[in-house]
Amino acid sequence: MAKSNNIVILGGNACGPKSAARARRCDPKARITIVEQGKNLSVATCGLPYYVSGVIDKRSDLLTREREFFQDVMDIETLTRTKALAIDRQAHKVKLLNLETNLTSTIEYDRLVLATGSMPVRPAFSEKQLKGIFTLTKIEDADTIRNVVSSRDINKLTIIGAGLIGLEMAEAFVNQEVEVTIAEALDWVLPTLLDFEVATYVGKHLQDKGVNLLLGQRVIGFEGNNNEWVRKVITRDIELDTDLVLLALGAKPNTRLAQDSGLAIGSTGGIAVNQYLQTSDPAIYAGGDCVENVNRITQRKLLAPMGSTANKQGRVIGTNVTGGCETFPGVLGTVIAKVFDYNVARVGLSELQAQEASHDIVTCLVPGYEHATYYPDGKEILVKLVASKTNGVLLGGQVAGPGETAKRIDVLATALTFGATIDDLANFDLTYAPPYNNAMDPLHNAANVIRNKRSRLARALTPMAVEDKIDSEEDFILLDVRSPGEWDICRIEAPQTKLIPLRELRAKLNTLPKDAEIVTYCQTSVRAYQAQRILKGAGFNNVKFMDGSIAAWPYELSATRLTCSP
Amino acid sequence: MAKSNNIVILGGNACGPKSAARARRCDPKARITIVEQGKNLSVATCGLPYYVSGVIDKRSDLLTREREFFQDVMDIETLTRTKALAIDRQAHKVKLLNLETNLTSTIEYDRLVLATGSMPVRPAFSEKQLKGIFTLTKIEDADTIRNVVSSRDINKLTIIGAGLIGLEMAEAFVNQEVEVTIAEALDWVLPTLLDFEVATYVGKHLQDKGVNLLLGQRVIGFEGNNNEWVRKVITRDIELDTDLVLLALGAKPNTRLAQDSGLAIGSTGGIAVNQYLQTSDPAIYAGGDCVENVNRITQRKLLAPMGSTANKQGRVIGTNVTGGCETFPGVLGTVIAKVFDYNVARVGLSELQAQEASHDIVTCLVPGYEHATYYPDGKEILVKLVASKTNGVLLGGQVAGPGETAKRIDVLATALTFGATIDDLANFDLTYAPPYNNAMDPLHNAANVIRNKRSRLARALTPMAVEDKIDSEEDFILLDVRSPGEWDICRIEAPQTKLIPLRELRAKLNTLPKDAEIVTYCQTSVRAYQAQRILKGAGFNNVKFMDGSIAAWPYELSATRLTCSP
Repeated sequence: MAKSNNIVILGGNACGPKSAARARRCDPKARITIVEQGKNLSVATCGLPYYVSGVIDKRSDLLTREREFFQDVMDIETLTRTKALAIDRQAHKVKLLNLETNLTSTIEYDRLVLATGSMPVRPAFSEKQLKGIFTLTKIEDADTIRNVVSSRDINKLTIIGAGLIGLEMAEAFVNQEVEVTIAEALDWVLPTLLDFEVATYVGKHLQDKGVNLLLGQRVIGFEGNNNEWVRKVITRDIELDTDLVLLALGAKPNTRLAQDSGLAIGSTGGIAVNQYLQTSDPAIYAGGDCVENVNRITQRKLLAPMGSTANKQGRVIGTNVTGGCETFPGVLGTVIAKVFDYNVARVGLSELQAQEASHDIVTCLVPGYEHATYYPDGKEILVKLVASKTNGVLLGGQVAGPGETAKRIDVLATALTFGATIDDLANFDLTYAPPYNNAMDPLHNAANVIRNKRSRLARALTPMAVEDKIDSEEDFILLDVRSPGEWDICRIEAPQTKLIPLRELRAKLNTLPKDAEIVTYCQTSVRAYQAQRILKGAGFNNVKFMDGSIAAWPYELSATRLTCSP
Repeated sequence: MAKSNNIVILGGNACGPKSAARARRCDPKARITIVEQGKNLSVATCGLPYYVSGVIDKRSDLLTREREFFQDVMDIETLTRTKALAIDRQAHKVKLLNLETNLTSTIEYDRLVLATGSMPVRPAFSEKQLKGIFTLTKIEDADTIRNVVSSRDINKLTIIGAGLIGLEMAEAFVNQEVEVTIAEALDWVLPTLLDFEVATYVGKHLQDKGVNLLLGQRVIGFEGNNNEWVRKVITRDIELDTDLVLLALGAKPNTRLAQDSGLAIGSTGGIAVNQYLQTSDPAIYAGGDCVENVNRITQRKLLAPMGSTANKQGRVIGTNVTGGCETFPGVLGTVIAKVFDYNVARVGLSELQAQEASHDIVTCLVPGYEHATYYPDGKEILVKLVASKTNGVLLGGQVAGPGETAKRIDVLATALTFGATIDDLANFDLTYAPPYNNAMDPLHNAANVIRNKRSRLARALTPMAVEDKIDSEEDFILLDVRSPGEWDICRIEAPQTKLIPLRELRAKLNTLPKDAEIVTYCQTSVRAYQAQRILKGAGFNNVKFMDGSIAAWPYELSATRLTCSP
């Protein structure tokens, strides 16, 4: 009988167990061992923010697989509370430390899988060893935080970093009546994921929910009280009282073992792998948060630590360590997060990223509704698309708001997979019935706005460009074409603003100077675009509309009421 | 000055107004006229079932555009209550009848647009002129039905036809405590859209909600009382008491004008158009429910009357009648409907349609959850995919259940647009966070089941094949690998059934004869597939699992409880 394939997997969450299970299904005879430092395997770490908030009540719900399952059903050996100390690539051996007994041992392998995950990023400044400063990557972190919140008098929390975990955790604490401040070094929330306008739209919602947003404030230190418990967060400009600090600065690949054993590390800091998820040593595979990925649009390397990617990669690895030949095609930077009542999602390249990749781009900013406006309880969303001006190829999208956004981003992700153009997108045959959508999905409308821009029917300015013109006191007319009632509720207050409701525009054309520069706006841009076409048709040659109009205006509005819904 | 382009549009809903508005934005000087028989323009007819049910309360919510809007804002003339009697293609004239004054007139055109919509299909038998028999295509129909329900004592409604409108209307009446029977000539609900297993899964939900489903019962007549009000519905087998009848037999293109004027009509019965939506007369365009479409997968002609398609086509026509050159690429047969608490959706080819188109196919039937199982309030869905066995190209999908389905079908629609393979689908980088999805979307799992089938790792039987084997008293083992607790709740009762929980399977291999034919099942197929792999690995060579298992079993279950949730 041939010697059975001996597969050792370092890492017991997401990619590790997935590759083990797949390997077993492909090869019933293989010897398969999972080595994991923690007590548990297959912990649903993506659920931790909801466990802290109490939305997920039972800790056991996050422990999706027991050790016995691996043993009895899968015939997979599991070594928990066991740390891999070093890999001897020559000898095909891994040195292990049993964290319970403190005894070391070695395990041989034919194929080794690194699924070592990621570690939280710590601040750049030398951090004092204060108590009350936490990260959230393991279930034990969540236990600790829950304990602190229930046993101490926590009134003020400071979250360092407005990334995904930071925003998800804000809700967890606001719901427990803690005063939450988010300090972010960059100028808007989710700064690596969203562009300014969409991020500001999300940021306003955080503020509406009572979160104190400190943007452009890099934290440079902490101070503690006599008991060495954190009491102050210090940025360059301010000092902030706090009872608790959550570091949410993102994650970095855990590559210690790979580095120590001389495996190639990519420029992003993740373990370098080829399309088969093989490291620079053909006997060693790697997947999940510890590897670097390929962006399917730019073909550039990036870090994209996602449970979804880790699972898909686990399957590829499980196939390949048992003699198969499967490839992993890369990622699109797809992300979604629940930020209080907003569903915030993005895919592909942001405008900034597209510019960095030297694309000549065209964008749109289109407010819409999740389903038919006449069907009850429809909620708003804001769609931003980024496309190549040169050939109309879609490059990315951002969709946020209280309405449904996952569907739209998943459609864009699928479209991006195939290099879809904006023309393609405009004719996708998507599901339609009043409880689910408009006859035209907001994506269709957004695609048509970009088509109109590319064909020069639509000429637009971004809200930022309009704000610049107002700020520099330029001589132009900012033409509000909404109804007087809408104007009363809220408007952009500027000397350049003038109200002519769309209905009256054709009749009042003579009140506008033909040679003036005119920028139209309304609630969602639909009427503003219509007004632009009317004016253009009447011989006004310097007319644009403002992308996204009031619904996407990222600055202050003059308002007699606080909210400005249509 | 050049004579302005004179555009006449026959039809004031969906495609008509959309093409008019687009034409105006493209050509500010064109003369544009919409001719509409009804009183109103742009009526949201897709909302009618919800207006009948009361979910949409205000009639005015369905009237999305007033005449004045077209006049004042768009500079489009609207002739309502006006019927087009005949087209004189030679003279480029349409003869009109004013339904208010009974006066006729003619209108000239440079470009004519036919957006004449569809008419309800009537039963094949010669229908008596009874009162109380309605169709639902116009807002006036909804008014009438609402009146009847509120003014008469309506206890029993019979809906003829289990298509989209039929199912949507069932909910409208059950909510008003009317006893609803649906009589369908074919053997399952939504027979042209879904395959048997998925349709039966939906049908069970209708029955759970109290709907009396009469399948395979073609209605052959009605009987009335002395007042000529309908009292009985007669099928070949039974007579059914009723107080009201709703004919929901689908719609057929309204092609009278096109036919009378000698325009080409397609084999499906819709007006034939090219990719520019031009009829056989280059000066006449047509779009919306009255035209025939092209299936993007098979390139065959089909009827697909959808508001979403009508709107997209309106834009294409508006562009082309003003000198542009846009094409409409066809449809995918995408459909979604709210059927009580189920979201029922499909796209592309069903298994039956794929067989008719001579594809060698592979399918899967995969129960799943809409989001992470550990995140609260997750609901079930059932996914069926159809793909080419030859090359793994995706051909279609059906997704139904209380959980989210629109997103999954929209992803499939996008994938089908680009000829995606099942391998592509398995690696789509879709949005993932616990409130929105599992790390692996149910579509990923479904794609992987098909990949496993194509690579011969997974061998499966459909529930229908298993039922056949039970019925013919075949000698095989139907191996339930769930827990004894699940077995107690419900199971497939057959002499061939045997219980060995998955956990005990490896230890109890010697209780199973090596040469037996074994079909495994569980709750959702996951454990059943695992069991198949374990048995195969142990040298059992005639093992299959049952697609979809208990969750998708379309027949009766032996149950100590009525519902059978995991």
